[in-house]
Amino acid sequence: MNIAIDAAGGEYAPHEIVKGAVKAAQDYNVNITLVGRKDILYIQASRYLKKLDMQIVDASQTIEDDESPIEAVQNKPDSSIAVGISLVRAGEADAFVSAGNTGAVLYSALIGLGRIEGIERPAIGSIINVNITSPVLLIDAGANSNCRPDHLLQFAQLGNIYAREVMGIASPRVALLSNGEEETKGNRLTQTTHSLLKQTDLNFIGNVEGHGIAKGTADVIVTDGFTGNIVLKTLEALGDTFLRLRNVGQVFANVTHTESRHQLFDVGLSSLIKRIDYRESGGACLLGVNGDVIIAHGRSQAKAIRNAIGLAKQSVDRNVCQIIREFSAANSIRSTESVEAEEEQGPERP
Amino acid sequence: MNIAIDAAGGEYAPHEIVKGAVKAAQDYNVNITLVGRKDILYIQASRYLKKLDMQIVDASQTIEDDESPIEAVQNKPDSSIAVGISLVRAGEADAFVSAGNTGAVLYSALIGLGRIEGIERPAIGSIINVNITSPVLLIDAGANSNCRPDHLLQFAQLGNIYAREVMGIASPRVALLSNGEEETKGNRLTQTTHSLLKQTDLNFIGNVEGHGIAKGTADVIVTDGFTGNIVLKTLEALGDTFLRLRNVGQVFANVTHTESRHQLFDVGLSSLIKRIDYRESGGACLLGVNGDVIIAHGRSQAKAIRNAIGLAKQSVDRNVCQIIREFSAANSIRSTESVEAEEEQGPERP
Repeated sequence: MNIAIDAAGGEYAPHEIVKGAVKAAQDYNVNITLVGRKDILYIQASRYLKKLDMQIVDASQTIEDDESPIEAVQNKPDSSIAVGISLVRAGEADAFVSAGNTGAVLYSALIGLGRIEGIERPAIGSIINVNITSPVLLIDAGANSNCRPDHLLQFAQLGNIYAREVMGIASPRVALLSNGEEETKGNRLTQTTHSLLKQTDLNFIGNVEGHGIAKGTADVIVTDGFTGNIVLKTLEALGDTFLRLRNVGQVFANVTHTESRHQLFDVGLSSLIKRIDYRESGGACLLGVNGDVIIAHGRSQAKAIRNAIGLAKQSVDRNVCQIIREFSAANSIRSTESVEAEEEQGPERP
Repeated sequence: MNIAIDAAGGEYAPHEIVKGAVKAAQDYNVNITLVGRKDILYIQASRYLKKLDMQIVDASQTIEDDESPIEAVQNKPDSSIAVGISLVRAGEADAFVSAGNTGAVLYSALIGLGRIEGIERPAIGSIINVNITSPVLLIDAGANSNCRPDHLLQFAQLGNIYAREVMGIASPRVALLSNGEEETKGNRLTQTTHSLLKQTDLNFIGNVEGHGIAKGTADVIVTDGFTGNIVLKTLEALGDTFLRLRNVGQVFANVTHTESRHQLFDVGLSSLIKRIDYRESGGACLLGVNGDVIIAHGRSQAKAIRNAIGLAKQSVDRNVCQIIREFSAANSIRSTESVEAEEEQGPERP
């Protein structure tokens, strides 16, 4: 298996990306292709590898985080993102992992790999680990700002496949994010989606409120990409706040030579912070395109990159794309009746 | 000043409600009217007061949290919520505070007090204290699931008045919650709202993402009630998780007789947990109805009830309702052009 990684994307590129890639190659026994400026990556990789047994593919351009995704992809054909996606399309890589500009990865994947037939809106599935024993897949975590009920229905189906195949949950509990647990609660989008979800053979457990993300009562939580993105970033920000407090505490402990600690609390807290800290946790998956694409957080450090590559390996191992293709072919999940005029413009641009 | 309090609403009613009300009466020098079953409240109040100088108004019915708001309000004319609202309408109370069924309070206020002329959708403004130095007012925190851009514009104006008058911020920084900071980011609702907000004389600082709630970069964050409710509950759930960890840590510390602690950390953490803990923090305000109504969290304990009464006092002191009335009369904020047919059905039912 060969996994291409965007060595130019993210806040800590290329150093942490290369470090994480080297670790992943060892831990998961996969081949890695680093994508970025060859001269720089050669030096970086040489720091970690005695024998340079890692492929490097040159990409002369870098898309920055603050660039407009569509323009950047169009104006930089030799970006590390475009080159990485083209490796997957050409079959030279089995998956692509990037911590770069999310919109650019999304747009590049849409035009480079295309949507799986029958999938109207590829979506981002993000694994949230706030609950110790029960991680949850939030889908869509940010790809589609404006959604229709049939889009959310597809997100549920995509998320169900991913939770079953990659997260290893036999019968994923699928829930709809809303502002009330009762069927009648929600906005028009969720009310209609609720009735659609009830008609499927999914293990649909109904609506969950914002609490549901931490409660561990659902395995897949379905929402539109606008709400999903806001929830994800709200969680991140609170994690950041706790992380800062922990750091202040540690500095203080060092200064005062405090030795004994609230150990159990500290272990529990550190573990929780790690779980919601994107520097340590894995990435999110782009589901519904013809290829395995993992989106890592822009602030990913080596450990997160290693974990994201692990996630990519699992997706490839479990044949997620093929399973989605087969599901989509067997199930007419496209509800052509409700396709509005605007839909004819193609997938939403990031 | 006389503030009516729903002594039958909330998980800890009547005990914690009465306790908080007694504390508020002492701390804020206000008169309190307890609303609920007179026989029970008489006994409860006697536990805290040597001389019973607190008015009790009988309300024989209680609306439970899991009741459908509209049906409950219609079927229980003598509920503590309905009676409390009627005291405000009759001018016998200056404000009403309830930790009961939020939808029922909302619906009761809408039919009992009515909307301020020109205000299409009363909204819930919730003060979030995640950031130490800069609390933020999230509006709408849950009253309106389906919103139009002109509704969000009004929420911004209501929030601006409240932040200025009650929170004491001379020129509140008003932001729009979205999934990207750029003007072009967001869903259709926020994109149109953004352009409307730019045309006002509000101190509009643009979009904020989910991080914005903790960052302290905005004083008022505007969103629809669907998204606002989900964000609020996500924050609460994470606060709960941290609270549980702290409790585990304290038990462990007691068992092992650990004495020295990460003091600064602990102080900082406790302070943060308190700030996001609804058992301790104050309530949310219902803005846009003809009367001061404060909605406390269903799990409010005495301290939160005391604080919610404090919030009510501030609203009355600052004449918030009258200021909204004057603003609404002077500014034609109702955009009749965009009123859709559905609007003619009246305000959304909770």
